[in-house]
This record gives sequence, C-alpha cells and structure tokens, in this order.
Amino acid sequence: MVIILKQNAKQEEISELLQWIRAQNVDPQSIEGESQHILGLVGNTHAIDIDAITTFPAVENVRRIAEPYKKANRKFHHHDTIVDVAGYKIGGGNFQVIAGPCSVESEQQVISIAQSVKQSGAHLLRGGAFKPRTSPYAFQGLKDEGIKYLIQAKKQTGMPIVSELMSMEHIDLFNDVDVIQVGARNMQNFVMLRELGACNKPILLKRGLANTLEEFLMSAEYIMAGGNSNVILCERGIRSFDHATRNVLDLSAVPVLKRLTHLPIIIDPSHATGKAELVESMSLAAVAAGADGLIIEVHNNPKAALCDGAQSLDFPMFAKLMHKVDVLKKCVDSLKD
Amino acid sequence: MVIILKQNAKQEEISELLQWIRAQNVDPQSIEGESQHILGLVGNTHAIDIDAITTFPAVENVRRIAEPYKKANRKFHHHDTIVDVAGYKIGGGNFQVIAGPCSVESEQQVISIAQSVKQSGAHLLRGGAFKPRTSPYAFQGLKDEGIKYLIQAKKQTGMPIVSELMSMEHIDLFNDVDVIQVGARNMQNFVMLRELGACNKPILLKRGLANTLEEFLMSAEYIMAGGNSNVILCERGIRSFDHATRNVLDLSAVPVLKRLTHLPIIIDPSHATGKAELVESMSLAAVAAGADGLIIEVHNNPKAALCDGAQSLDFPMFAKLMHKVDVLKKCVDSLKD
Amino acid sequence: MVIILKQNAKQEEISELLQWIRAQNVDPQSIEGESQHILGLVGNTHAIDIDAITTFPAVENVRRIAEPYKKANRKFHHHDTIVDVAGYKIGGGNFQVIAGPCSVESEQQVISIAQSVKQSGAHLLRGGAFKPRTSPYAFQGLKDEGIKYLIQAKKQTGMPIVSELMSMEHIDLFNDVDVIQVGARNMQNFVMLRELGACNKPILLKRGLANTLEEFLMSAEYIMAGGNSNVILCERGIRSFDHATRNVLDLSAVPVLKRLTHLPIIIDPSHATGKAELVESMSLAAVAAGADGLIIEVHNNPKAALCDGAQSLDFPMFAKLMHKVDVLKKCVDSLKD
Amino acid sequence: MVIILKQNAKQEEISELLQWIRAQNVDPQSIEGESQHILGLVGNTHAIDIDAITTFPAVENVRRIAEPYKKANRKFHHHDTIVDVAGYKIGGGNFQVIAGPCSVESEQQVISIAQSVKQSGAHLLRGGAFKPRTSPYAFQGLKDEGIKYLIQAKKQTGMPIVSELMSMEHIDLFNDVDVIQVGARNMQNFVMLRELGACNKPILLKRGLANTLEEFLMSAEYIMAGGNSNVILCERGIRSFDHATRNVLDLSAVPVLKRLTHLPIIIDPSHATGKAELVESMSLAAVAAGADGLIIEVHNNPKAALCDGAQSLDFPMFAKLMHKVDVLKKCVDSLKD
Repeated sequence: MVIILKQNAKQEEISELLQWIRAQNVDPQSIEGESQHILGLVGNTHAIDIDAITTFPAVENVRRIAEPYKKANRKFHHHDTIVDVAGYKIGGGNFQVIAGPCSVESEQQVISIAQSVKQSGAHLLRGGAFKPRTSPYAFQGLKDEGIKYLIQAKKQTGMPIVSELMSMEHIDLFNDVDVIQVGARNMQNFVMLRELGACNKPILLKRGLANTLEEFLMSAEYIMAGGNSNVILCERGIRSFDHATRNVLDLSAVPVLKRLTHLPIIIDPSHATGKAELVESMSLAAVAAGADGLIIEVHNNPKAALCDGAQSLDFPMFAKLMHKVDVLKKCVDSLKD
Repeated sequence: MVIILKQNAKQEEISELLQWIRAQNVDPQSIEGESQHILGLVGNTHAIDIDAITTFPAVENVRRIAEPYKKANRKFHHHDTIVDVAGYKIGGGNFQVIAGPCSVESEQQVISIAQSVKQSGAHLLRGGAFKPRTSPYAFQGLKDEGIKYLIQAKKQTGMPIVSELMSMEHIDLFNDVDVIQVGARNMQNFVMLRELGACNKPILLKRGLANTLEEFLMSAEYIMAGGNSNVILCERGIRSFDHATRNVLDLSAVPVLKRLTHLPIIIDPSHATGKAELVESMSLAAVAAGADGLIIEVHNNPKAALCDGAQSLDFPMFAKLMHKVDVLKKCVDSLKD
Repeated sequence: MVIILKQNAKQEEISELLQWIRAQNVDPQSIEGESQHILGLVGNTHAIDIDAITTFPAVENVRRIAEPYKKANRKFHHHDTIVDVAGYKIGGGNFQVIAGPCSVESEQQVISIAQSVKQSGAHLLRGGAFKPRTSPYAFQGLKDEGIKYLIQAKKQTGMPIVSELMSMEHIDLFNDVDVIQVGARNMQNFVMLRELGACNKPILLKRGLANTLEEFLMSAEYIMAGGNSNVILCERGIRSFDHATRNVLDLSAVPVLKRLTHLPIIIDPSHATGKAELVESMSLAAVAAGADGLIIEVHNNPKAALCDGAQSLDFPMFAKLMHKVDVLKKCVDSLKD
Repeated sequence: MVIILKQNAKQEEISELLQWIRAQNVDPQSIEGESQHILGLVGNTHAIDIDAITTFPAVENVRRIAEPYKKANRKFHHHDTIVDVAGYKIGGGNFQVIAGPCSVESEQQVISIAQSVKQSGAHLLRGGAFKPRTSPYAFQGLKDEGIKYLIQAKKQTGMPIVSELMSMEHIDLFNDVDVIQVGARNMQNFVMLRELGACNKPILLKRGLANTLEEFLMSAEYIMAGGNSNVILCERGIRSFDHATRNVLDLSAVPVLKRLTHLPIIIDPSHATGKAELVESMSLAAVAAGADGLIIEVHNNPKAALCDGAQSLDFPMFAKLMHKVDVLKKCVDSLKD
C-alpha cells in the first residue's frame, strides 16, 4: 500500500498518521522527493481499511498494490485448479461444453434436449428451474418441478446437471444438482456466496453485468474463504453503451484471468450476445482465446421457448457448432507452447 | 409493440408469424412501405415475449413501445405516492433527510450520532447492521447486535430507523426497523423483492450500479406487484469509465423518474461520490434537481470508522450541510411553477 | 511514480531496471516488505514513459502518482482563472449564461433569438455555423454564412458570440468570434488543440463523450502549453449503458474539477439530457453544484429547428429558466462558506 | 419510422403533426389500440429529423426503424467489398496481417522491423509518423521524417504502408502512403472524413472509444458518400468500467458487422488490450471470430520504444504468433459452412 501525502501537510498531521499506521502493526517507509512525499506500507496490509486512511488530513491519496484476494490468487497457488463434476473435469487443460435450455419447460422437453446435446458431444446439461426475470409478470420457471425434471434427465442420460440457485431458501432442492450456478445478478449476494462456501459442490459463478475482474475474483474468494475451492468462473458479457448485442462479451477476460487466478474460466456466448446467430463465432473465438469450456443454450423449438428463445440454438445448429468446436479445439491444443 | 419484417421475408413465413400473433389474442396491423413492412400489435401485449417473436424467420427486429411496468407507472397513477414513515412523509412535496453511520459500531456510537443528526434537523436515522462488503475479510457489520443498538437509538431519540436487509433469513430481526433498505447489489434479487412485496413496511430501493431506470422501475414493480406500494427509490451513482469519483451520480434520474413514476426519489450523495468533500455540493444539486430527500452518511469520528470513513461527514460538516439544504429547499420551493 | 516488482524478479533483472531509471536522472528508492518489493521514483518523472517501464521483466506494475498536467493544475496555480469575454467574466465567482440556437438558420432567426435571450438576461450568444452531424445526409450548418449572421447579431445586440470550430481550415472565418468552441468529438483532436494554443481567444472546451476528467484536463493542457490560458471547461454529459437520457450529466465533475484545476467550469444541460423538459432542473442543479455558467440551446420555434429541436427551449421557457437561475444563484451565493 | 402518440393528445395536436408529416412527402399510417395510438411513416424517411418530430405536443416518442446508413449497408450491397492494397486484398475471404511499430523512430528501425515482420509473413507495414498523445509533453512522432522512413522501408521491402493521418493539413505527405488510417479519436472528425471521401486511397477507419457500431458505420458512410468505397473497419477496444485491460476488445463486433455491412473488418489486439502478453490469445480469437485481418504492433526493442512499448511484440513473439495465426486460419477456413 502506498500513501501519497499532501504537499502542504503539517508535521503534526503526518505524525498523527504515522502513529495510527504503526498501531496497525505495519511499518511506514518514507520516500521524499522535491515536490512529493510518499509512504510505502510494509507488512500485512490486508486488514487496513483504505477508506480510513483517506480521512487523515495529511493524506492526498492511497493506492493498494497487492491484490485483495488470496485463495483465488495464482501467485499463491501456481497450479491450475481442476474442478471435477461427476467425473468430468474442467480446467487444467480439460475443456467441457455445458448445454441445455434456458428454462426447463417439461420433463419430456428437457430429456429430449439432454439426449440431443449429449449425442452432439456435450457432457453436462444445463437447465433453469428458478429463473431471474426482469419483469414480475414474466415466466419465472417451474421451480421444484423443474429441478425434478432435470434430475429425471440426469437419470436417463447420465449427464451431470447445472442449475441456477436464486435463494438459499431453495438449497435443499439442489441435493442432486451437480453444479450450482450463481447468476450474474447474485454475483455480489455476499450472504449466498458465504453460505455456498460451506457446501462442497462445484459452483459456477457468473460475472456480474458491471463488475470488474477484481470484484469477480473477490466473489470467488468469498466462496473459497468458506472452504469450497470448486469454483468455475463464467464470463457472460458486460454492460456497455452499445446495444447492438445484449452485452459485450469480454473475451480478453480469459487470458487476464488465466494470469490472475488458477480457477477455470468458461464462456457463455448465449447470454453475452443474446442472439443465436452470433453464438457460433463467439464460441469459436472463446476456444481460440483459451477458455476452459462453454455454456450454451439449446432448445428443441426456440420459437416456442418460454424464455430467451432468441439466443437458443436448435439441435442442428448445436450439432454443427459442436463439430466445429471439436476441430478447432484440437487445432488450438496443437499450437500450445 | 412494433415488428419490423425482413425485406425478403417469404409469404408463408409472414403467415406463420401472423397466425402465432393472433393466437396470443393480439391484433397485428400491417403498414407496408416501398422498402419496409412493419406490423403494429394492438391489444394487451404485456404477456408477449419479445424474444419469442425474434425467432420467427420473417422477423428482423421488434420494439416494445409501452413501458413494461404498470403499478409504478405515472400514466396509470397520476398522483405522487407519499410514503409515510412513522409520521414522516416522503414524496408529494415532502422532503426528508436520512442520516447516520455507514455501519453501527456500538450502542453509544449510534445513539450519539442519532442525537447529533436529529439536532441538526434530520428526521430519520440510517445505520448498517448487515454490511455488503466486496471482501470476505472486511468488517461485515454487527448484525443482530447492530439492529438492537439502532432500536435503542430509536427509543432514545424517537427517530424512525432505516437499515439494509441482505437476506430474507434475517427478516425477523427487522420487526422494529421502520424502513427496509434493499442495497444496490440486491436490486435484482428477485426472490427478495417478491417477498418484500408481501410485507407492509416502506422499502428503500437503491438503484443497481449498472441498471437502467427501466430496470429500476421493474424492480419497484416486483415489490408493488406483491401488494406493497411503499417504495422509495434511491439513486446512488452508476458505474462509468471514469474513476475520479467512486460512481457517477446520475442526477437527471430525478426529473426523468418524476415523469415516469409516481414514487418518491431520494439521492445518496455519500455512496455516489465516495468522498466527504463532494457530499455538500451534490446534496445541494439534488435539492435543486427536485429530489424528495437525501440519505447521508454521518460519523462521530470518520477517521476511525470501520467502513466507508472517507465518505462520512463529521457532525459540524453535517450541521452546516443541513442549514444549507434547508435554506436552498425553501428557495427551490418558492420557484415552483 | 511507484514501481511494483515481480515477486520472483531476478537480481540481474532488477539491476537492469535500476540502471535504466538512473539513466533518466531519477532516483529509485527501495521499499522491501516480506512479500513485496516496490520502488518509489523521486525527481522529475514527467518525462518517463510508464509503458517503457512495464516492458522490463522485473516489473509487475507501475502507478503514476503525480497528476500529468501542470498548467491546468490547481496545485501550481492556486487562484481561480477568470476568463474575460469582451468584458463578461467567467470563473472566480463570475457566472455567465450562454444561450442561442443549436444551429444558425438565417440572419433574422439568430438576431431575434439574440434579442430575446438578451432580454431574458443571457450575456453571451451561442450559435452553430459548422455542425458536427453523425449522418453525412443531415444538415451540416450554414458555414461561412452562419458566421456572418452571428456577427450581425453581435453588432445588433452587443453580445459576444460563441461558435464551434470543426477544423483549423475554417479558422480565418472566426476572427470576430469571441469564444471558439471545441466540440466533444474534437476534445482529443490534438493538432487542433495545439494550434488553438497559439491563438489568444478564449476556448470553450467540451468534455468528450467517454473521456475521463484527467484526459479532459490534459486536453486543456495542450491548449495552455501553447500559451493560451483562456480555457473554459464544459461538461456536457457522458456515455452510459442507460439511454433514458441522451447522455448522463456528470455534475460531480463540477466540485471535482474545482479541486483539480483553476479553470472555470460550465454546464451544458441541453446536450447532456437531449430533452427540453429536463433542462430546467439540470440547470438549477448545476447552479447549486457550483458551476461557473451554463450554455443552453434556445430556439424561436423548436418544432421547426434544423437540428436538435428536441432539446431547445422556446423563449418563454428560457425566460422562466433565467428568472429561476437568477434567484437560485443569489441563494447559493449567500450560502458560501 | 414509428411515432408513438401521447395518450391524452388532443385532436388538433394530432392534426398539426399529420399535416407536418405529409408536408415531408411521407405517408403516416395510423394504428390505434385501446391505450395506444401509433403512426407508421411510409416512404423516404431519411430526410426526416427525429428531433423535430419529438417537439410536437402530440408526440410521446419516435423510433427509427431503418438503418441510417445506405452505402455501407449490406442490405443494399450483398457482396463483400474487397479492398485492394497494392495487390494485397482484404475482405471477401482475404485475410491480411498489418504489422509494425507504434511509432517510426528511425529509418534503420523501421526497415529492420519491416524486414522482420515480412519474413514472419506480414504483408503490410504499419508505422506511426504523427502520433496522437494524451499529453502535450509526450513524444509526438517524427512527422514528415517518419513518413519518409516508411517510404524507404516500402522501397526496400515492397510492403505497402499504413499510417495515421491526424489532420488534413498533412495530407500531401501521404501521397506514397498506401492506406490512410483514421484514428479512434478522429472517428467523428466529420470534416476529415468528408475530405477523405474525395481521395481514392483505402482508408483504415478505427472505431471510436465509445462509439456504437451504428455510429461507426455512419462514419464509414461519410467517406463512402464522398465516393471512396475503400473503407476497412477496425475494432480496437471500447471503454468500460474495468481497467484490467486498457480497453475491452469487442469481438462480437465482427459477426455483427458482417451482417450489417459489406465492408471488411480487422482487429487491433495491441491497442485493445494494451499488453503484449494478451495479443496472441486475442489475435487467435479474432481469427476464429471471422475477422478479415489483424493490425499488430511489433518493435525491435519494446523496452526502448518511444511509445506504447508495453503492447508491442518483439520479433520472436511475432514470428510465433504468425505461425499460429496461419495454422488457425486454415483450420477456421476448413470449417466454413
């Protein structure tokens, strides 16, 4: 942590600050230039509140230098985390495609989609039972019925299932769900994150619409601080001024996160773009960028989907996509340094 | 709702679409130009899923024309909603200042702050017991103890209290809290919004960091759809590319929301700017813009605050601010058309 | 400037860096903690390229601490700059309203608008002769004719005139223009800024749509570096994800800029909001926030305006606004510390 | 164009509007629902000013339906435009890599870089002679000397050259430059765009930092409206709230632009990310997304670069990248539908 002192700070103001810093068991080292005086804080500065420092009259500005996350930090965990979902591995060179409908609509629907996406090569099934919808008047998901149908599909196909948890009050319904998804709007629902840290299931954590990568990793840290290290990060598009696509897919998050953290990173091109016709090119781009997986919406009949039909692939589109992803992934792997 | 058809849409594709629209009990009216063919949907289009329409091959684009919110919509409720908090009114010309510490730190602290801000003219007391913090390692609030201390302060001063609810599992602790605050990060925690619709307490709903005004009103609609119309909207700064202030205070939200909705709108200059020295000018600007109130962080000793000290006013700063707000409000009121 | 070294930096890599730094005549002071090693650079670091430093293998990160602007920096020029426009002063407590049509349409039009806004109390006349339009097919302004009509209006009313320069090739036409406006889209047209530094006219510099306050001040610095200190800053709204208003008016820029720079700051509520009905409340908010002036679009017949009619006030609206601004300004002045 | 009328619009207000619309030689067709009345405008609505319409008292809102660009619009020009640069084709399946230093520093430097990137497989040479720099105190490029050195490099290697024009006053120096680059900060320098429409050289048009794809295409339209159809679009990152990378590379712009326009689209991963270590993965992602080319900064000695060293590849990094791009491009081509 570096503190920049005000040009005209008085000696007693500086002394007051130094005394406070030392009371935090941290050693302030001084660097004085002609027109500037800065303090470098050496020691364990994690517990120090930046805001508290800025209230001292001597202080002009404070900059944190160390990343505020530890368990998620690659600096302290050099090897890639590999998350194991019922035998399917994600991360550390292992790539998975998760596919399925935005929302579960019937037992038959989800089973037929599961069978189709499995045949096309997807190993994990996604499906929403509890749906976060902007409007209170929109379809909100089949809830516990939806979870049951997903479990039926899992039984029929052997595919592990991924579904979104919208509130801890539903957690008991998720016993047979293999991966709990935390949606973008709950990325900073800290009570939920903390409680998920106490469960031992893999968590698929989606980046919030307007959250920085550092905040994203801090939310992963919340889960990991509770003892659950099975966190899969998912970039799904961020907000921008341009509404040509629903969100802007931030693909450079892949190589950046690969440097900052050891956790696996997957891409959701369906929610990022909001348009089925853009999913293929963004999926291929994600593979080339080095993502550890994809999560893709597939529907038996997108026209009749109760939710997000516009971004869902139909079966032939998905089969074609899986073929291309497969070929491209092999090519990308062959290019690894 | 207006549907723009593709230039080269085939007749059978258009027929398929028209048939589907009529099956929704909506009447599609056709406007054909030289190079464009559009359909205007007349009737109750609220239940129609825009996404579903875009999946039809004949469709190039769809635009919603009516606002998707009803109960929050001024078109259907012309008069200002006045929220009554234990006798203190907000909205419809009634202006209130809510003041207090970011987080409750001790009984004595919150009582002394309450007494001071009351003396300066604030009528409602704010204080955080459950604190949403980006880092799992930061101070998370005194929780149930904090609520108890707030209630003590209420008893001692007679000030109604405002506190943030982070999870419905804590709701029973809020029986004596007068206004439940939904924080920016929970603005789209739809399960919580729906459940708060069933309680009859005033809700202070903060705008999410990157949410549009329409989404903001849709979240109010969630609460109102459950039967609770006592919603106070709060603008507290939005994310931008510039980090000169913590967020960008979107003051034009005040006159825009005044047109779109009948709900009261208050401003939080403390969180918007993140800097105590900017709170006064933004408070005065909010009054001039027509806000129905302010919520301001005040601390007995900002330097020692456990949270957000940098943005907290001390007692003399707050007293001075209240004097200015008071004088300015009278001037602004005298200028009303 | 502070350099954070990589945890695993080798001694020879650090030596290479230290050698390079000393070759820039800057003294690197070392602060070593348990898990971190940082260098504080003392001396004149303005000439040092941050990018160059990050290419050294020993370097993890670099942070600039000093502001990169000097002439615009309040630290080095404590007193407010007062810009004098033909006897009308802006800044240092002097407040001015600049009013007029988005674009000059005819001699008669601009004269009648000038007479009306003067009667309502505006002292400076704005009018666009060269219009930056997103579409090549839209009305681009009357160009040299427009400038002539403005000069006629100046002669008839005595009001100094403000007009936008879109290219240095038109500069000769601006001899009798009192204030040259640099539009938001040209805020980083560095060739133009540099050349305007050589003229001695006041420059009204508009903030770019997505430029930080630091970049804004660096553009002012370009002009000032050439010897022209008569720069008036103008905040006119920034881009955001929400399109409820055309742009988001960043009013907290006023108190922030007041701290960072000694230059006057005015507000353009017309372009910021894009809607005439929002101009009044944002003008009053700007006054309360401490702005040094306003620039407002006024049109004799907004319905028939060739450009930006939706945001133009008509004469009665402007007269009413001026009355309110006048009353409010007196109130705000009476509240000064 | 669709006009939504106010619920309570009076009959004479509607008549006034209808009369005005008909005076524009456009036919307003009426669609009346229970709670809404909309007008669809049929005919040539390009000349109609949306702003003018919103000033009518009867009007609540107006939405444009047709894209405002014509010459750049794929609807009216179905086939891909192929830009020919001295025999090297870009677009329509033709892929090119443009490489070279951010800024030309000496004749020897640019020639050695040209030889190296040519050997690695790049066909076009980029190099900045006029450099847009945020600070007036930073290195501004070698200007006319720089152009001379580029031309020398072209003579020596046969590579066509690409260089940025910052002002039309320098245009005479660009006679032997093969592609004129318009930088992001000049994307809406409409005077320059218009004048470049009159030249017959290929123009590399970079997307502005905060410009929508529609605005991007309108700027291309400016050039094309003047008669020059040789426009190459270049996405180079947009502004966001997250500063983990310099900008956010908007790769979905590639498939979106491919649908909207027939012009070629290339990607600049160097400026988008600002970091050399991210260039490779973003280059590969761009290839997979379907881009028509890349423009990449390469420097003989990034550490000593006078500008943007942090984002420049050295020779071995570039050679490795070209090999990977080459292999991946063949794979992607083999997957085309």
